This record gives sequence, structure tokens and C-alpha cells, in this order.
Amino acid sequence: MHATSEQRAPVTVIGLGSMGTALARAFLRAGHPTTVWNRTPEKADGLVAEGAVRAATVAEAASAAELIVICVLDHRAVRAILDAAGDALAGRVVVNLTSSTPEEARQAAARAAERGVRYLDGAIMAVPTMIGSERALIFYGGPEEVYRRLEPTLAAVAGAGAYLGEDVGRPSLFDVALLGLMWTTWAGFIHALALVTGGKVEAAEFLPHARTWFDHVIAPEVPRIAEQVDRRRHPGDGSALAMQAAAIDHLVEAGRALKVDTELPEYLQDRARQAIERGHADDSFASLFEVLSAPTD
Amino acid sequence: MHATSEQRAPVTVIGLGSMGTALARAFLRAGHPTTVWNRTPEKADGLVAEGAVRAATVAEAASAAELIVICVLDHRAVRAILDAAGDALAGRVVVNLTSSTPEEARQAAARAAERGVRYLDGAIMAVPTMIGSERALIFYGGPEEVYRRLEPTLAAVAGAGAYLGEDVGRPSLFDVALLGLMWTTWAGFIHALALVTGGKVEAAEFLPHARTWFDHVIAPEVPRIAEQVDRRRHPGDGSALAMQAAAIDHLVEAGRALKVDTELPEYLQDRARQAIERGHADDSFASLFEVLSAPTD
Repeated sequence: MHATSEQRAPVTVIGLGSMGTALARAFLRAGHPTTVWNRTPEKADGLVAEGAVRAATVAEAASAAELIVICVLDHRAVRAILDAAGDALAGRVVVNLTSSTPEEARQAAARAAERGVRYLDGAIMAVPTMIGSERALIFYGGPEEVYRRLEPTLAAVAGAGAYLGEDVGRPSLFDVALLGLMWTTWAGFIHALALVTGGKVEAAEFLPHARTWFDHVIAPEVPRIAEQVDRRRHPGDGSALAMQAAAIDHLVEAGRALKVDTELPEYLQDRARQAIERGHADDSFASLFEVLSAPTD
Repeated sequence: MHATSEQRAPVTVIGLGSMGTALARAFLRAGHPTTVWNRTPEKADGLVAEGAVRAATVAEAASAAELIVICVLDHRAVRAILDAAGDALAGRVVVNLTSSTPEEARQAAARAAERGVRYLDGAIMAVPTMIGSERALIFYGGPEEVYRRLEPTLAAVAGAGAYLGEDVGRPSLFDVALLGLMWTTWAGFIHALALVTGGKVEAAEFLPHARTWFDHVIAPEVPRIAEQVDRRRHPGDGSALAMQAAAIDHLVEAGRALKVDTELPEYLQDRARQAIERGHADDSFASLFEVLSAPTD
């Protein structure tokens, strides 16, 4: 199934935390000659046993391949590696998969450019156990010709690579936006469970109702919200924000009566009020966009 | 298709806002002799033209049927109607579909009991245009034999009636919990759109990624959260809260850099920290339940 190593492009992976190790292993398994480096060299032991080459220095690691994948703790560690590599990275391509903010990604790209290094930023939307599978999604941003050339190699780590354009900040932007949607949705569900279990209902009993509600009511509205946001017009169409704000009051009251945390519904209540004050009483819930995208304070 | 009126049980509907009107119309269309009352009598004009009988007083309306559906503005209006009906309601069944809190539903049930009225509480999980269709969902709570006997009649207004048990507070509890999940999820999506549009990405471009992420990552975790909450054990299984808290910091930073409202991610950040302080660093995100269900302040 795997091609022999001779046919595949060499790859270097810098940073061998659980994610970096998973990336290096996926390259190895796909037949890429893989050089690895980690600040604590022992972390490479397992990969070396599987066929990876341990580099003694960052510069040595950088010299071993055209494609250098960096996946370290944070932006500071990325900077330290770019500095430590010195001229060894010039003319090569760094793919930075370190979790960071859009601004940090742009800073790393600028630093790479100063050193004559081509740069792609990536955001891994997967846990380490998914790396190397079709289910793993990685967003990429940077020069398109660089991405397209490396795409076959990068396919070894994520079946679902998605190129988002030249802006190196975009992968991190999509990353934080999707993670925020995830945590918020989960927090909303957990808050709902705090309410119903406070009322002596088991989560298992509430779950099927939540799923039906999700599929039939919550999810179908999402594309309409996106459309209204792009048009910057939020017609209420029979479901006015003012009416929903009154129902949010019930949510807050029910939470207080059950002594559960009410900050989340109070946040919704407050932002709905702000939107109403700004003239969106008859508009849809999507008009909260006008408040969230341009807060008063 | 419809049975003749003679075969169907008479029904009274009190309160003719947009929802009450939709309920009365659905009963009429299903062939139930329908008596209506509204504080402003003119609101009944359309229904009378469609075959409804206008009652002059609440007591007259209450005397016209065994089943009295109340759908008014709020709990205060419900109380006023129970009081105005006097003895006319004794021995009959009130189905209160007024939007309220669990506590208000219990108060209304107690007041009804004092007057010798059997009581079901209901929560309408639909907009008026859905009433009378298979898609309309109404939750009911109260004495089971009362509900089962009225179920065929109530089927005229909602195809998907769901009986939640004897507790009259439960329909409102499920109502607020599901609405809270809905608003929170939408707020999370709107916040994500504030971020990406702040980064010059159109909502339409982000939408397909959000939907994939929803289906592949967000939704599949929901049953696991419910299970962990019922067990009151939240093993992290490789996705520890401490790691997620670090990523939440990126979400807050990205929001600040783009000058969008950061209160929502700051809320997530704070509650994740509280959960970690309470010993859930290695647990899953679901451990936020311990904080939300038992807040410190």
C-alpha cells in the first residue's frame, strides 16, 4: 500500500508533543523519509525506532528536507526555532501547525519572510489520534503555488486539508471561530442540563428532545443567520427579537429559581436588550451580530 | 377528511394573540366546536367568521367545554382568568399553554386545584404558523389519565405532543432549557461570524465549514456530555480541560485583536478556570457542569 521511501519527499517535523509525534508518525507511515527534532531529544526515541532520523540541532533538522513542519507549544517557541535555525531554513518551506492567534501567524510569516523562508500557516482541527486519517481536517493559508505543490505530501497527515487562501491569519481565525462555536454550543447544552437535572430530570431523558430540537429548529436557522449577516439586514419574519427577549427573561428566572449559574442567559438577555436599544426590536435574533461585531464598551 | 362537529369534543380557547388564534383555528379545522374569549373581543372576529362562538365573559367561555385552553400573555394574565372564571371552571380541565417558568406553572396548578379544576401545563415549542401541523411540538405535564383522555383532542393543534410526566413544571423547564440551548448556539455562531467577518471573510464562506464542524465534531460529543453528567464523572480521554482552556485564551485574544465582543469567550474562560480550580484539569469540557450547576457566588 505504501510507496517506498525513495519515491516520497523528505519531511522534517520539529516539536514532538503528542500532536507533533502523530504528524511525524503519519509521514513515516506514508513512506516519507522523516527527520525529527525536539528540545528534549528522548521524545524522539519511539519515532527513531519506527524509522525516523533524529537531528542533533534545529539547523540540522532544517537542512534535511525542503518541507519543515513546526508543531510546538506556542508562538514564542516558534520564534525561538526560526531564530535557532539561522540560515538553514532559507529557500525552504515552513508549515507552521502550532496553535496560535491570527496575529501571531502573521508575525511568524513576517519573520520567516525576513529569513528568505516560504511560509504556510496551518490550523489542525483534530486530536492527535485522528492524524493520518480521512477524518482529520487541517486548514492552510499562504501562497497558493506553495500549498498546491506540497498538497500531496501534506495529505499524509490529514485527509481533509482545506486551503483558505493567501492570508496566513485565516487558518487560526477559522480555528478559533469554530472552537468558539463548539465550546459555546457545549456550554449551552451543559447549562440546559444544569437546569433540567436541577428539576430532577436525568440528562439521558432530556437528550433525545435536545437532539430533535437541534436538528429541527436550531440547525436549520444557521444558514439564514449567515445570509442575514452578509446582507447586514435581519428581518424578524414573525419571530421578533423583542418577543424572544421576553422569553430569555424566563430562562434567567428559571435558572435563579434552580440556583444554577445564570451568567450565560444574563449575557443573552443583555445583548438582546442592546440590540433592541439599537433599533432591532422587530428584527431576528441574528441582529445580535450588530452588537457582537461592534460592542459599545 | 374532517369529522363533523357533532363527533368532536367542544373546546374553549381563552386568549387570542397570534398563538391563541392559531390554536383556536386548528381546533376549528379539526371539527371541534370552538368557543373563544379575548379581553379585546374584536380579536375574535376572524375566528367567528370561520365558525367559532364568541363568549361574552370568561365564565361563559369556561362553561362551554370540558377542555379550556388558556394561552395568554403571561402568568399574571393566567391568574386573572382563573379568578374571573369563578366556579365556572370547577370539574373542567384547564390546559395552560401560556409561556411561563416552572415555578409559575406550579403556582397556576395549585390555584386551579383550589378551585376544583384539573390542570395540565403545556409548553409550545413552535411558532404560530406551525400550529395544526405534524411539525408542531407541545410538551405536556400533569395527571397522566387526564392527558391520555384529552390526547386525541390536543392532537388537533400539534402532531408531536410529548407527555413529560406528572410534574406540571417540567414542560416549562424543558422549554426554557431548549430555548437556552438554541439562543446560546446561535449566539456562538453569531460570535464566530463576528470574528471571521472581522477578518474580512464572508459568512457564506465560513458557513460550510461551520456545518461540517457541527456535524462531525460538535454534535457527536453531545450524547457523551449527557452521559458524563448523569454519571457525574467527566474523564478527559485525551482532551483535557486544561488544554482547552489554553485554546480558549486564543479565542479571547483573537476577539480583542478584532475588536469584537469578548464577553462570551471570557465567560467560557472563567468557567473553565473555575472547573480546573475545582480539580477538573484533566477532565473533559463536560466537567463545566459541576460549575454551572453549583456556582460559587
